[in-house]
Amino acid sequence: MAAYAQMSKEELNQEKEALMQAYKDWQGKGLTLNMARGKPSEEQLDLSIGLMNSIVDEMEIVREEKNIDLRNYGGLEGITGARKLLATMLEVEPEDVLIYGNSSLNMMFDTISRAWNKGIMGNTPWGKLDKVKWLCPAPGYDRHFAICEYFGIEMIPVPMHEDGPDMDMVEELVAKDDAIKGIWCVPKFSNPQGIVYSDEVVRRFANLKPAAKDFRIFWDNAYCVHYLYDEVKILNIIEETRKAGNEDIVFEFCSTSKVSFAGAGISGMAASEANRKDALATMTVMTIGHDKVNQLRHAIFFDRGKKVAEHMKKHADLLRPRFEIVLKSLEKNLGGKEVGTWGNPKGGYFITFEAMEGCATRIVQLAKECGVVMTGAGAPFPYHKDPKDSVIRIAPSYPSREELKEAAEIFTICVRLASVEKLLEE
Amino acid sequence: MAAYAQMSKEELNQEKEALMQAYKDWQGKGLTLNMARGKPSEEQLDLSIGLMNSIVDEMEIVREEKNIDLRNYGGLEGITGARKLLATMLEVEPEDVLIYGNSSLNMMFDTISRAWNKGIMGNTPWGKLDKVKWLCPAPGYDRHFAICEYFGIEMIPVPMHEDGPDMDMVEELVAKDDAIKGIWCVPKFSNPQGIVYSDEVVRRFANLKPAAKDFRIFWDNAYCVHYLYDEVKILNIIEETRKAGNEDIVFEFCSTSKVSFAGAGISGMAASEANRKDALATMTVMTIGHDKVNQLRHAIFFDRGKKVAEHMKKHADLLRPRFEIVLKSLEKNLGGKEVGTWGNPKGGYFITFEAMEGCATRIVQLAKECGVVMTGAGAPFPYHKDPKDSVIRIAPSYPSREELKEAAEIFTICVRLASVEKLLEE
Repeated sequence: MAAYAQMSKEELNQEKEALMQAYKDWQGKGLTLNMARGKPSEEQLDLSIGLMNSIVDEMEIVREEKNIDLRNYGGLEGITGARKLLATMLEVEPEDVLIYGNSSLNMMFDTISRAWNKGIMGNTPWGKLDKVKWLCPAPGYDRHFAICEYFGIEMIPVPMHEDGPDMDMVEELVAKDDAIKGIWCVPKFSNPQGIVYSDEVVRRFANLKPAAKDFRIFWDNAYCVHYLYDEVKILNIIEETRKAGNEDIVFEFCSTSKVSFAGAGISGMAASEANRKDALATMTVMTIGHDKVNQLRHAIFFDRGKKVAEHMKKHADLLRPRFEIVLKSLEKNLGGKEVGTWGNPKGGYFITFEAMEGCATRIVQLAKECGVVMTGAGAPFPYHKDPKDSVIRIAPSYPSREELKEAAEIFTICVRLASVEKLLEE
Repeated sequence: MAAYAQMSKEELNQEKEALMQAYKDWQGKGLTLNMARGKPSEEQLDLSIGLMNSIVDEMEIVREEKNIDLRNYGGLEGITGARKLLATMLEVEPEDVLIYGNSSLNMMFDTISRAWNKGIMGNTPWGKLDKVKWLCPAPGYDRHFAICEYFGIEMIPVPMHEDGPDMDMVEELVAKDDAIKGIWCVPKFSNPQGIVYSDEVVRRFANLKPAAKDFRIFWDNAYCVHYLYDEVKILNIIEETRKAGNEDIVFEFCSTSKVSFAGAGISGMAASEANRKDALATMTVMTIGHDKVNQLRHAIFFDRGKKVAEHMKKHADLLRPRFEIVLKSLEKNLGGKEVGTWGNPKGGYFITFEAMEGCATRIVQLAKECGVVMTGAGAPFPYHKDPKDSVIRIAPSYPSREELKEAAEIFTICVRLASVEKLLEE
């Protein structure tokens, strides 16, 4: 098919009319579809239904093993079996891991809150400083940015390349400005682009020399075992920071939200001994311990980590066709038209579509008015400001395949329509 | 038996020698007993073992009812069934309740953290103020005081009377000092004294007119349904503040920690609509929602609250004999000696023993060296400072009855020994 940019005004007008007709036909169906959030589908949740079953007998064993009753108070660091599970996912030692509640986002929020109120390892509480700044590789995860906004942290966007954030910029900025206290990273299958950090990028992070002693890398390894095809390896940040004698620089987060249940999993953090001790000093005031019974359910269901890889293949089998439905629709309906580009991720939960400049907001609006909810345009950027108004995050995990076919079809019509409108304006 | 104070020096010395012998005999047994923390016993935890069973079928129903999959993300306020459960416990409406994670302490900590970083309902964040003060009825709950210490909040002790805190003092202080931002209250079976607030005290709280607009009563109704004998009613603070047109002044907390599992229950807060809205604005940044599957387990197991009263009777049947073992031992071994006084609580988790002035630390030390761990002397006071060094919190819930008999016996020997020592010093 012809690239839109090559079309005459007349051809564009004809195309627009045809698209409007198709759009209205879809609109007439009154659909309610959603490609906005990275929620697992019902079929994915059913994979862990064994977690709901009785575990009383096995509890007896573990109780003896640990010499504590898991139903009672205590156990701030998490039970051994749960630490083993997350350690397997992150390829670290169980001792490196602190277990939290059902949300790693909550743990990240609380980690910043702790730095804000108490300071990190004896440094000045961030809340007492005139200014706190943060590096935000963008596009990135909207909920990370929302935490910065909540605390009034100034966000500095950092461009993303194919192998991770622009490391020249990261190194330069952290070296010269001690108000910069952290950076968000989703190192594997980044949200939303699905980018995998190269070995060089991970090593440069591990060797970072920030001006601020209390600078921390928030390494949100949310998709560490979330492959669509074969396993994809990245360098281990905990190991690399140790090699670099820089082990206090990183907090590595993960959860089972997209392994077991999105709302009822377990989460945790791998970090240096000093960082863990610092975190525990706050946690011991904050709570008498997270839910150890749910930790036990997870430890047993995933055999302390041994069953994770096998389990994730089942997720992949459910997710892969959904990604492929969207990718095929994009290729079929947009290929050759030069109205946008899109990634082809090997894991994670998102496909990023990059529209013609100035079109993203209009596309999302058109989709919405046709019954397809997308993540808001701008959401993957600090302050919701996409400088080019072009990036749209597509989340194919939640709808059924049938719904997804319709949603993707409608989306491509909206892309084409917005692009034609744009070209006619010029 | 004779009061120790009436004894001659010689008699005291004889008594001391006899007590030392008994003490050493106990010491020789090398026991490890613990009356330190208000932990439920294993038998109590077994009462809720049904919570561990499969709930898959019932899940289907609830899923339909709410039109959301409880295993997935979302549902920040908590599921209806869980809100009904806590509403029943607090005698409020389900809409008044926000559900949290497994720890009401965590919710209290986070509530102060939110006020610290963000401010309450648009008021200046407490972290930006020169000074934040807090009223602490004492003796009180050590973990409440630990939260104040963590944030550097200046704690002002308020004496406890038989019907609650000294309200003249509370009213006077909050009216004149706008740096006072809150007060801890455990209104029913207070920790550690088991005091029940009178109607007058609750009404005076509901009608409080603090200088600070963002003053809040932290009404920790931890033992709202935790009777040892018959039901004991107190006035409903949510209702009373509404009557007084003062409904924003209170956060009422509770949990199922001592109803179901101490480490794996659910918690929540009843509060005015404005307060809930303010809390949700932070919660939505902090997490994508608390564990709804555990909420569902609780909603079903307690039939949305209908089965709580019956269930708590079973707890009472396990707790009552334990309280009575301690009380009998105190009466038998200390009655008439005038070496201390103690409460006779009708609910809650503690017995408070008030020793002769200057003896608490020594008693706790003696007990420890004889294998009985007690809550640290001073713990129930702000900054761990008991002005008279006399209050000791006894927690009879966790040990078995056999252990408790021994522990109580040893405790009374330690009380007598410390008292004799004290009298011989004078």
